[in-house]
Amino acid sequence: MKHTKVKDLLNSTTTLHEVNAKGWVRTFRNNQFIALNDGSTINNIQCVVDFENTPDETLKRITTGAAVSVTGTLVESKGAGQKYEIQVAELEILGDSDAEKFPMQPKKHSLEFLRENAHLRVRTNAFSAIMRVRSVLSFAVHSYFQEKGFVYVNTPIITGSDAEGAGEMFKVTALPFDNTPRTEEGKVNYKEDFFGKETNLTVSGQLEGETFAMALGQIYTFGPTFRAENSNTSRHLAEFWMIEPEVAFNDLNDNMDLAEDFIQYVIKYVLDKCPEDLKFLEGRLIEEEKVKPQAERSEMALLEKLNFVLENNFKRVSYTEAIDILRDSTPNKKKKFNYIINEWGADLQSEHERYLVEKHFKCPVILFDYPANIKAFYMRLNEDGKTVRAMDILFPGIGEIVGGSQREERYEVLVEKMKALGIDEEELWWYLDTRRFGSAVHSGFGLGFERLVLFVTGMTNIRDVIPFPRTPMNAEF
Amino acid sequence: MKHTKVKDLLNSTTTLHEVNAKGWVRTFRNNQFIALNDGSTINNIQCVVDFENTPDETLKRITTGAAVSVTGTLVESKGAGQKYEIQVAELEILGDSDAEKFPMQPKKHSLEFLRENAHLRVRTNAFSAIMRVRSVLSFAVHSYFQEKGFVYVNTPIITGSDAEGAGEMFKVTALPFDNTPRTEEGKVNYKEDFFGKETNLTVSGQLEGETFAMALGQIYTFGPTFRAENSNTSRHLAEFWMIEPEVAFNDLNDNMDLAEDFIQYVIKYVLDKCPEDLKFLEGRLIEEEKVKPQAERSEMALLEKLNFVLENNFKRVSYTEAIDILRDSTPNKKKKFNYIINEWGADLQSEHERYLVEKHFKCPVILFDYPANIKAFYMRLNEDGKTVRAMDILFPGIGEIVGGSQREERYEVLVEKMKALGIDEEELWWYLDTRRFGSAVHSGFGLGFERLVLFVTGMTNIRDVIPFPRTPMNAEF
Repeated sequence: MKHTKVKDLLNSTTTLHEVNAKGWVRTFRNNQFIALNDGSTINNIQCVVDFENTPDETLKRITTGAAVSVTGTLVESKGAGQKYEIQVAELEILGDSDAEKFPMQPKKHSLEFLRENAHLRVRTNAFSAIMRVRSVLSFAVHSYFQEKGFVYVNTPIITGSDAEGAGEMFKVTALPFDNTPRTEEGKVNYKEDFFGKETNLTVSGQLEGETFAMALGQIYTFGPTFRAENSNTSRHLAEFWMIEPEVAFNDLNDNMDLAEDFIQYVIKYVLDKCPEDLKFLEGRLIEEEKVKPQAERSEMALLEKLNFVLENNFKRVSYTEAIDILRDSTPNKKKKFNYIINEWGADLQSEHERYLVEKHFKCPVILFDYPANIKAFYMRLNEDGKTVRAMDILFPGIGEIVGGSQREERYEVLVEKMKALGIDEEELWWYLDTRRFGSAVHSGFGLGFERLVLFVTGMTNIRDVIPFPRTPMNAEF
Repeated sequence: MKHTKVKDLLNSTTTLHEVNAKGWVRTFRNNQFIALNDGSTINNIQCVVDFENTPDETLKRITTGAAVSVTGTLVESKGAGQKYEIQVAELEILGDSDAEKFPMQPKKHSLEFLRENAHLRVRTNAFSAIMRVRSVLSFAVHSYFQEKGFVYVNTPIITGSDAEGAGEMFKVTALPFDNTPRTEEGKVNYKEDFFGKETNLTVSGQLEGETFAMALGQIYTFGPTFRAENSNTSRHLAEFWMIEPEVAFNDLNDNMDLAEDFIQYVIKYVLDKCPEDLKFLEGRLIEEEKVKPQAERSEMALLEKLNFVLENNFKRVSYTEAIDILRDSTPNKKKKFNYIINEWGADLQSEHERYLVEKHFKCPVILFDYPANIKAFYMRLNEDGKTVRAMDILFPGIGEIVGGSQREERYEVLVEKMKALGIDEEELWWYLDTRRFGSAVHSGFGLGFERLVLFVTGMTNIRDVIPFPRTPMNAEF
């Protein structure tokens, strides 16, 4: 008979005579009670084995991690915490799991240990919950943009341009390290490489995305991006997924409205669709924080924090106002910041962002109108000649979650800026075409998907919210 | 005032006093009629300019490709083919477009020329339609799996293993070609590379996906994959998007059911959501085919062909049956095939697949139970010891669209096969873990997304259904 998902069995409205479930044994107690999980839900279904009529040989094989098929009757459970259980009539071991060797024991493992077993950690409650939430969040992203008529654009992963200068890039090549083809001058001859030129992994789909926004009006990307920075922190990955909407005719205010509305939509979506997983993750976080000093614990529980973001407008503050607030702040005056804010033009550090969000405003903050010289070349220069129409959205706990801007739509201003920064106009001929032919005000932003997942799941290390993290010295699996 | 999308204006239920539209000029006729498009729909809105009261200087700037903002009254149109038009009261040029230099002239361009201008080709009717259809198809993919409770998994793009041997891979590295770090034996010392080992771009997320299916039950991937094969054909890309579902406890028949149901769902979805774009593409295809000899034209128009796939079950045929059909076929007997089918075990070529689908069965065909030695190591060996539980779905016009299999769940059989093929067990320790701990029957398939888009849009070159194609000697943009 066809098996039924554990989720559907637990949500059944009646007891049922004959059901079949398939899944993996989480625990087996008293030679009688199997906690069975099939990944469809955080909850296990209890399967009660008739141990007196089951051969010892079989009972021994019901070990943590074993795959089993159980057939029996769905009955009301006498045990606490569960509505239904299966009275097992027939049990088949599909795949054994050697109890001594199976790494995922029914006990607490360190997150480090679990990372080394990324292929198996998803068999734990916490990681299955994270991965289900991540999946639903992905769909929320697509749903939001599609409902609003945005076109999903797959910008290229392999790119011939390093124009943005957003960070160090990974080289993509089919050339050998030995006997590399050379030009007459002795340089590597990329004309003999697969693409006939030097190529890298993309750091952003923005520039290509802009060209599509200037034809389709509203577009978004959602794909992997790469940074070859040697940053071994809990906030950096070498490979991560980024969401980048771009909208023709939107100015910076429209852009801020879009970002805020978008973030609130996806958080509401996941609150609606994943209540059990989020509740589990909230409990997990509370347990984690119990061992921390009081001062380091979250002021709000996970669900409260998510609802807080839904219910409050993000505070919009100009860079200039932010500098004034920071200059006058207690930690600045008492020299508690590692980087003291003395004057306008300073690049804000993580400690400053956290002060603004967590201490001063106590809500998500949108900072805008940054000094031109600390921001990217494509951002629109304000009339003051010294600030650009950039914005960053800062969240409690995780800092910058969105970075965006109104783009410089004026051909001459853009070219001048590229010249000043030594960016090759020839290489970006196609990008400049958007300003040559039918240019218009347009804006967009980038949101690092894993930072959003971090925020929503309450995890603290970005390696724990992506299936197989890529970091310096780590590309296992 | 806030502008309204052209799509919404054209779908208005009443005339409206004051509206604002922003978009790009497709044509400007008689100094009076602007065909304005903003990417929200294949249809332009006609904007009637009061040329007597508009300065000549402005009229001259209303050129193909220019971005304009028009404010005026939405009135019923006297012209044929459109319900509404805008009587323009105010016109602002947002961005000029030099009529002599703008590459996208209002005339037919070759597809080759448009590929060289991939950043601008999306401003044509055909490419905007293709890109909207592609976007809606992407969402259909996510909708299907999410509705069925599948978990979306982002398998890694950069991978440390070349275990599948599916094709030549691109190297990903941060090492320099000059003064490359070397081991004592003079080999490249990948321990000094970013990840501390040799890494490549993924050719498939399947193996990682399987590890997640064996915990979450039902998963799917949808991400970019890469092949460094020097295939300069209309069916190959070096970078393309692949969909790979994987389901625990599914056997090959369940897998075929899933693939068929999935394909019919996404085609129905796009037929429902994109009627205007598909109608336009159907007309385009008819025009294209007019110049072809009768024999090369499609037997069905585009919409008819899509509906045909919806309404007919895919024919399921074993490899062995297919060989018999091919051996007895007229082209085989008359030696019209380039590769004559003489005996069981032959690897089917594109000409054979086309014969089966387009001549013999005249419907989509699922071939299954292929000879083990022409298929991948992870496919489940049948009891006959010589065939494996593989399946390919073949479509008219484009050939293989899906390749899948029931996976070999038996540890010993899998290891034996890996040994025979020289695949490193050490490297795939994590993959083998799924068969060590709670193994079970499971199945999945891969669908090249661009082949699906080709089929749905009626285009014939795969480079025309992805925003920025990556092919040998081509990584522009």
